Parts: sequence; C-alpha cells; structure tokens
Amino acid sequence: MQAANPYQIGLDKTPANHVSLSPLTFLERAATVYPNTISVIHGDQRFTWQETYARCRRLASALQQRGIGKGDTVAVMLPNIPAMVECHFGIPMTGAVLNTLNTRLDAEAIAFMLKHGEAKVLITDREFSDTIAGALKLLEQPPLVIDVDDVVYTGSGKCLGEIEYEAFIATGDANFAWGMPADEWEAIALNYTSGTTGNPKGVVYHHRGAYLNAVCNILEWGMPRHAVYLWTLPMFHCNGWCFPWTMAANVGTNVCLRRIDARAIFDLIKEHKVTHYCAAPIVHNLLINAPADCKEGIEHGVNCLVAGAAPPSSVIEGMEKLGFNITHVYGLTETYGPASVCAKHPEWDNLTLADRTEKNGRQGVRYSMQDGMTVMDPNTMTEVPHDGETMGEIMFRGNLVMKGYLKNPDATNESLAGGWFHTGDLAVIQPDGYIKIKDRSKDVIISGGENISSIEVEDVLCRYPGVITAAVVALPDPKWGEVPCAFVELAEGLEGNEQAVIEYCREHLARFKVPKQIHFGPIPKTSTGKIQKFLLRQQVKSASAIE
Amino acid sequence: MQAANPYQIGLDKTPANHVSLSPLTFLERAATVYPNTISVIHGDQRFTWQETYARCRRLASALQQRGIGKGDTVAVMLPNIPAMVECHFGIPMTGAVLNTLNTRLDAEAIAFMLKHGEAKVLITDREFSDTIAGALKLLEQPPLVIDVDDVVYTGSGKCLGEIEYEAFIATGDANFAWGMPADEWEAIALNYTSGTTGNPKGVVYHHRGAYLNAVCNILEWGMPRHAVYLWTLPMFHCNGWCFPWTMAANVGTNVCLRRIDARAIFDLIKEHKVTHYCAAPIVHNLLINAPADCKEGIEHGVNCLVAGAAPPSSVIEGMEKLGFNITHVYGLTETYGPASVCAKHPEWDNLTLADRTEKNGRQGVRYSMQDGMTVMDPNTMTEVPHDGETMGEIMFRGNLVMKGYLKNPDATNESLAGGWFHTGDLAVIQPDGYIKIKDRSKDVIISGGENISSIEVEDVLCRYPGVITAAVVALPDPKWGEVPCAFVELAEGLEGNEQAVIEYCREHLARFKVPKQIHFGPIPKTSTGKIQKFLLRQQVKSASAIE
Repeated sequence: MQAANPYQIGLDKTPANHVSLSPLTFLERAATVYPNTISVIHGDQRFTWQETYARCRRLASALQQRGIGKGDTVAVMLPNIPAMVECHFGIPMTGAVLNTLNTRLDAEAIAFMLKHGEAKVLITDREFSDTIAGALKLLEQPPLVIDVDDVVYTGSGKCLGEIEYEAFIATGDANFAWGMPADEWEAIALNYTSGTTGNPKGVVYHHRGAYLNAVCNILEWGMPRHAVYLWTLPMFHCNGWCFPWTMAANVGTNVCLRRIDARAIFDLIKEHKVTHYCAAPIVHNLLINAPADCKEGIEHGVNCLVAGAAPPSSVIEGMEKLGFNITHVYGLTETYGPASVCAKHPEWDNLTLADRTEKNGRQGVRYSMQDGMTVMDPNTMTEVPHDGETMGEIMFRGNLVMKGYLKNPDATNESLAGGWFHTGDLAVIQPDGYIKIKDRSKDVIISGGENISSIEVEDVLCRYPGVITAAVVALPDPKWGEVPCAFVELAEGLEGNEQAVIEYCREHLARFKVPKQIHFGPIPKTSTGKIQKFLLRQQVKSASAIE
Repeated sequence: MQAANPYQIGLDKTPANHVSLSPLTFLERAATVYPNTISVIHGDQRFTWQETYARCRRLASALQQRGIGKGDTVAVMLPNIPAMVECHFGIPMTGAVLNTLNTRLDAEAIAFMLKHGEAKVLITDREFSDTIAGALKLLEQPPLVIDVDDVVYTGSGKCLGEIEYEAFIATGDANFAWGMPADEWEAIALNYTSGTTGNPKGVVYHHRGAYLNAVCNILEWGMPRHAVYLWTLPMFHCNGWCFPWTMAANVGTNVCLRRIDARAIFDLIKEHKVTHYCAAPIVHNLLINAPADCKEGIEHGVNCLVAGAAPPSSVIEGMEKLGFNITHVYGLTETYGPASVCAKHPEWDNLTLADRTEKNGRQGVRYSMQDGMTVMDPNTMTEVPHDGETMGEIMFRGNLVMKGYLKNPDATNESLAGGWFHTGDLAVIQPDGYIKIKDRSKDVIISGGENISSIEVEDVLCRYPGVITAAVVALPDPKWGEVPCAFVELAEGLEGNEQAVIEYCREHLARFKVPKQIHFGPIPKTSTGKIQKFLLRQQVKSASAIE
C-alpha cells in the first residue's frame, strides 16, 4: 500500500487561498490604487480609472436589472470608444458573455451571429444603424437594443433602440456588488471568426485565458507600467488581443480611435505621447506610406506589435526605418489573438537591416504563458525537424487556447484533436527553434510536385516599388498541375507593368515559383482586412474555364 | 426550468486548452528560446539557460532513479549557489516538494524539520556539515545525503553523504522527460516559518501560486526582460520570494552570493551591471553604512526591493540618497514572500525626501495577482475605516496565499478562517487606501489604555545618529499598566547616552510614547534577522520582578 501524500491532506482550496483568475480584478485594483490616473481618452473626453470602474459597475448593474446574468450573451457593435472598453468589464461582471461584432460586416452576417449567439442585449453605435436595422429585421426574437450616441461622432445614422447608453448606465448602481466568476473556466467572451468561407464559428474565451493573455502581453512586450496605448487595432477583433484587460493590469491609458487614418494616428501619438499600439500589416503600411510631415516631431519611443499570417517583411523594415520599435506576434482568434512572439535577441542588433528583418519577421516562439507551440505533421502528430525546410502545421497547446466553438462540438473536437489546437497554417521550424509560416494549408500551390508557398511569392511582390498588397493563388495548368498566379494592388496613380514585375520575381525567386500571370487592380478583402483568396481562385478558375 | 447554459456544453477542458500553471514551464522556454543567455554567474563559473536546464533535468532524473516522486520531500541546506537555483526546478520536476532549510538554524531545529517534513533526500553544502551532522544524529531514519562541494567555497566543513552533487547529477539524464504537475494545486515547496516562539510551521506552496507570484514580481517591479539579479536575499527564505522562478520567466541572469558582505555586493553590482536585487532592511543598512569608496563607480540604474514588517524609513531614505530605486514590498512566508507593494505614484516625485519616504515606506496595496488585502477587526471581520488611525489586522486573500500548514489542520484552519489569511500584523488604512503597518498584534504596548505602536517608536530611534537597530517592548508599570522600554544597538565604537536618546524621542513622539528606559547593547535576532522580542520581554520581566 502506498503511503498517503501528506501534501494532499487538510490542504484543500478555501476562499482564502483560491480565487478564480479573471481580468476583472485588474480593473478594481487600477481604480482603487490609481483612482485619478487617466484610463480613457476619446476626443475631448477624459475618464479616470475610478470613473471607468464606476461606469462599468453601472453598466453591470443596469444589465442585471434587465435580467442579464450568467451564461447570457450581450453583443456589441462598437468602434474603439470608451463604451467598448467598458463593455469588456461591465458585461462579464454580470456573469454574461461579451460578443463583439465586427463592425464591417453586413446585416446578414450580423443577424447570423446574433441568432447563433442568442444575444439578449445588443449595444450598438449610431454609425452602424443601417446594418443593424437590417440585421434586426432578419430576427424573430430581436435583442434589447441600446444605442451609443457617441459625442465625438458627427456622422450619419440613427438611434434604433429603446434607450441610449448613457441613460441606460445611469439606471445602474456605481457601487454594484459584482462577483468574480465561481469558476475561471466560465466564458467571458464570444468572438466569431471572420472565416474566408462558410458560416463563422463562435470562439469562446474563458476568464482564465483572458487573464493570462492580458498579463502575457505585458511580459512579452516588456511593457512598463502606465503605458499610453493607442487603439489602432479594433477591439472587436479577438477582444483587441486582450488589451482592454492588459491596460487595466498595466494601469495605463487607452487612447480611443474611431477610424483608421494615418494623420489622425500620428497626431494622437504626438499629442498623448503614445508609447504602444498594435495593428495589422495594412495599418502599418498606411503609416509607412503617409506624407512625410505627419511623421515629424515624434521624439519619444513608440513600440508596436504587428500580426497577421504573413506580414510582408517590407512592413517590418519600413517601421524600423520610421524609428518605431516593432515586434512581430502571431496567433488566431482561437488563441486570444497573439500566442506567439518573434522574441528578439540582442545580438540581432548587429545584423544588417535585411537580415534583422528576416529574423524579426518570423512567427517565432510560444508566448511565455502558452504551454506549447510547434510544427507537426498533422497525420502522425510528430514534430518536423528543425531544418527550416520540412513543412508541417502550426499547433498550439495551453491556457491561451479557446474553450472551443459555441454549439459546434464537431468543429471543437476536430480543432483540438490529439491534444493540440490545429491552426491550419503551414510552417517550418528553423534551426534556432523559431517557427516561420509558409502558408495556409489550403493556399499552398503544388507545381510539378513541388510546394510553393504563396506567402513567399507575395513577400517578394510586396518589395516591388509601389505595391500595396499582393495575393498569389494557384492557376490550373495542364503541364505542372498548378502554377502561381499573382494579383497586385498598386499605390494610387501607378500603372502596372507585368513583364517588369515578372522580371523582378525572377531575380528573387526560384524559377518555378515565379508567377505566370500578374493581374493589377484592387484585391477583395474581408472586413478584417484578410485577403479573400477564394474569390481570386474563383476568378482564376472561371477565366481558365472560358479559355 | 432554467435553460441550459450553452457555454457549458461541449466546451470542457482538454489537454489542448488546459495546462497546469507551473513555473517549471518558464525554464523550458528560457532554455529553448535563449539557450546561450547566461543563466547563472557564480565566482568564475558561468552557466547558460540551456546548461541550467540540462543540469535541472539531470538532477530530476537522478532523483527519480533514487525513487523520488510525487509527494516526496527533498530538503536542501544551501547558500545562494547554482545548485540552489537548480533545486528549484529539478526537485519539482520529479513531482517532489522542495524544502529549503534556513542555513542559520541549529542542529535541533534542522532535525525537527527533516523529521516533520519526512525528507527522503537532503542536499547540503559542505559549509554546514557541523550542523547537519548534528541534525542527522538526532534522526532515526536519516535521509539520503548529497553533498555540494562548491568550487567557490574554500572554508571548512566536510562531505557527509554517499555522493557529491556533481557526481549525483552526472548519473541523471540531461534529456529526462519530466512532466508538468497533473494539478496546479500540487505542492511545489515547503517552507518552515522561522517563528519567534514555538515549533516552526511548515508552509506549503503550490505550483499555481509559485507561477503567479513569479510573474507578479515582474509586473510590480515593471521589470524589463533579461534583468541581472543579485542574490542578496537567501533563496531559503520563501524560495527567495519566488525569484528563482521569476528569473526564468524573465530570462535574466542570477548572480550568486554565498555570504552577505557590503564590499562584495557593490563589486558584483559593478562587475555584472546588476539591475535588480531584494533584501531585508538589515542588508540595505549595511550598504548605506558601507565605506564611501565601495559605492563609487555605479553608473547604471539599480532597483531594489525591501521587505520586512517594519523597515525603518531611514532605510528608504538612505537607499534613495545612494541613488538606488527602492520599492517597498510586504508579505509573509504564508504569502510566498511579498504579496503587497507600496505602488509608487509619479506625483510623489515632487514631494520632499521626508514626505516621499513616508509615502514609500508603507505596506501599500495588494499585488496585482493577489485577490485582496485589507485591514479588518478580526472579531467582526469588517474592514476598518480608511482614517489612518483605526487599527485592525492585515488580511490577505487570493492565489498568493499558501495551501496551508503541513500536517497541522488546526493552524491551517485558524489562519485561513473567515475566508482570509490572518497575518497577525496590526495596521491602519490611510485615506488613499494604502495600508501602513503598526505592529505585530502581540507587540503593541498598552499604556494608560492607549495603544503604542512599537514600530513607531523604533522608527524614531533608528533615526538617532549611530543607531543600527532598535527594539521596543512593554515594561510592566504599576501606574500605566505598560510603558515602552527600548533596546538600542549602536554602530561599533559608539557609546550610548540614555538621556540624549530620550530627549530625542521627546522631540519626535507624543509624551506617552517615549521609552522610559533605554538599554544599549546587542539585540538578539533569529537566524533570518528578525528581532526576538520574546527574549527582550523575558529580560524586562525578570528585571522588574527582581526590582
């Protein structure tokens, strides 16, 4: 008989030594320790952490009075404004789940999400009233609608619901006694994937993961306390990579931004001495290509995170030239946003800009608080060799992986099969253990039996002068099976020269990877800026069918 | 009937999305992401994170070969040397519990701990062989003894066991497949309280708390990555406030130090550009009073944490004058070391040194990852008003509170009663919500019905020129019940002047708080530097009995 383990006797969890991990706790601390520190800046509006906490409690209290509680969904259709920050706390304070809706979606997609997520309340900004009105018409049981009539917003749109947000929260109690979740595994947020095809899936986050990712953002960025954070990244996108919660833990300042505009961004950076922001490659590109006078007069250090399946290395190079300290992160909606980081090494500072960019442009290594990240053969679930050549699928494991997909056990089980979350992204592991993405599995082009990474070709195209975006898809070919076909979007006013671009590719790519066709023109994107390759493929297919 | 909560259906924990929180994971990441970064410096020795990881795995493997596993205790009697860092990982990697022994204890106390903790293995440094030999003689079933014969140590002492540490870990596998704890509530460490009276209690830490406190140290300190950390704080003391794990998460460098010596400390700070260290007030005092030439030539920023129930404000003032950035933290063995911090406010920089010292010298507010800290009437369990006057007991709640006391359910239940950990420290809450300690509950002096904080009086005494340590206890008094009686330790070569000191106290204290007697001479301290007031009280009592 084995002796009893003395460390497991009389040492159970009690309310004194075990509390759920929840990012809500950071707000309470910010408000009590730094009550007068500015929490949110929006136009001429200023809130302190004490005020933000009181407003969140009012929101929670008002929602509870309307019967909202544990397991209910509250959807929001909001730009990056103070109400959006407040919803990240006030809604979970009731036990309910925050469902941020992508403001660029159409009525049908919104209606699908409201119905699938069973939203009981919808908080929506006047700017989106046309879309929302359309969506509500499609629902048999529309939610309670609360309108945000943002003082900073002067554009069109009307109030649709029965009460305005300020009036609504005024019905709540600023001293509302909210509680921590009884179990940290309880859901805190619901985020629908933008998915390039098919119905979106509802990714469910829990309090534990939101808490850990919020803290890990600070660790990976080496973020000092009281940062000034500019909201260039939509908060509806993976809960702004958990940064609403990060900023409460950091006791920093949220600088709101309703619309992406290069001049506005630079002006806010200068006015508020913004120290940190996150953005997709497309936003960084905007900043790089902004008029020179915008960029002048920034004396303080600015740190930025960039993520995307494949940020062209030109973005990293461009931001470095701008003097911003850029760090590359990688993740998916299913991993609370970034769950890996291209952790920098001091010795890279001695490399040439091009070599450093190559190093810094990789997907990198697991976040410190994620348990595992690797590249595996998805059939055998064995790790690929660290040779920089053998492709496999990127897999994550750990506390920064979603609970699963709402009401979709098949998709949940499939995505979490074998003890790892399957990203669908193809990559290699380089000899230093850093992961470099090659492609989405469905985007690989197979030409004469050889795999061609569409990302590699796109990266070369993006370095051609004047190219804003590039997308490469497979063109059916009788001899090779498939060959690369490129779509290229140029800066305004420029005209494309197919032969010159092909010649440029020949200089920088193996022969078989060079696109056989170049199409110039606008490239279709999803509402989150992802290129819709399936549309390009359809275009290519119908064209080749006609031929 | 209530509708089912859709967020709780088909969204269970899986190996892909739920992993135990354990600080062991930080070591693996440091070693794989930054294999060549220096992990440990000890004299002329240098280890990289890759090497430290391999050594920890060898240690774990070698222990496992000796039958060590889940729930077993491995005790260590080690100074701050590389082996001590390694024990913080290698021992828990087997599922066993690390029991660090206070190297200043005597044989009897060590024997008590080895017996109570049921240590199966003892890893001990040659320096302590006399004490350990004595302790082993007191045991019926002595543990397996492994000697560390540290190359840096040239003093006396002999090897007692059957194998030396280097030879022992050489029997282990550098690729040992260790596992994370199945449950993050599993014990990781056992720390005996030094207690000023009675048998020590065995405080049990779990992986979850060690992980969270390790991370929280980084948050509270605003610690940048790759810090250089000097080991002035004993690792045997609350596992060095969890900093062995913090430094792995930080991918920083541990600078070892076998013995406290002011010149050695300043030399290491200069040689290795030490950025961070922690220490008790007594160590800081040593540095403040060190010869001027020691202090010259430090050009880089040095950050330090100081903790102790009552660091005299003179320490904070002295360190500031030295140009070091000092932060005051507070906690107990039961809270993994510090669990509160006197979080600074930028506007305090504009105060006078004395006012800023007053602000910075408080126990402050909860650590960001601790759930609660307050001051309550222990009878009614209600919070005292934030008036800076009403005394109550400091209470903590959250994930940075121990599992409990090993094999001591009564003490565990008592200390965690009412959902809060009772510290036994008396304090007030100031109007800004910051907590300021007044005394240990048993150290308060009640004079004519008025409470006198011994700490307040000691603080004044410590500001008198030449005073190194001061301790104030109650002297029985026929008229007032009790009056303050002071014990004062002066710098070497100085002689005490009772009237002058009493006069000084009159200038700085209310009349009834002024000590009626001043005794000059050495003050008895525990092995961790805590003043043994019970001995002083005995001295006072027997003296007054004789009178």
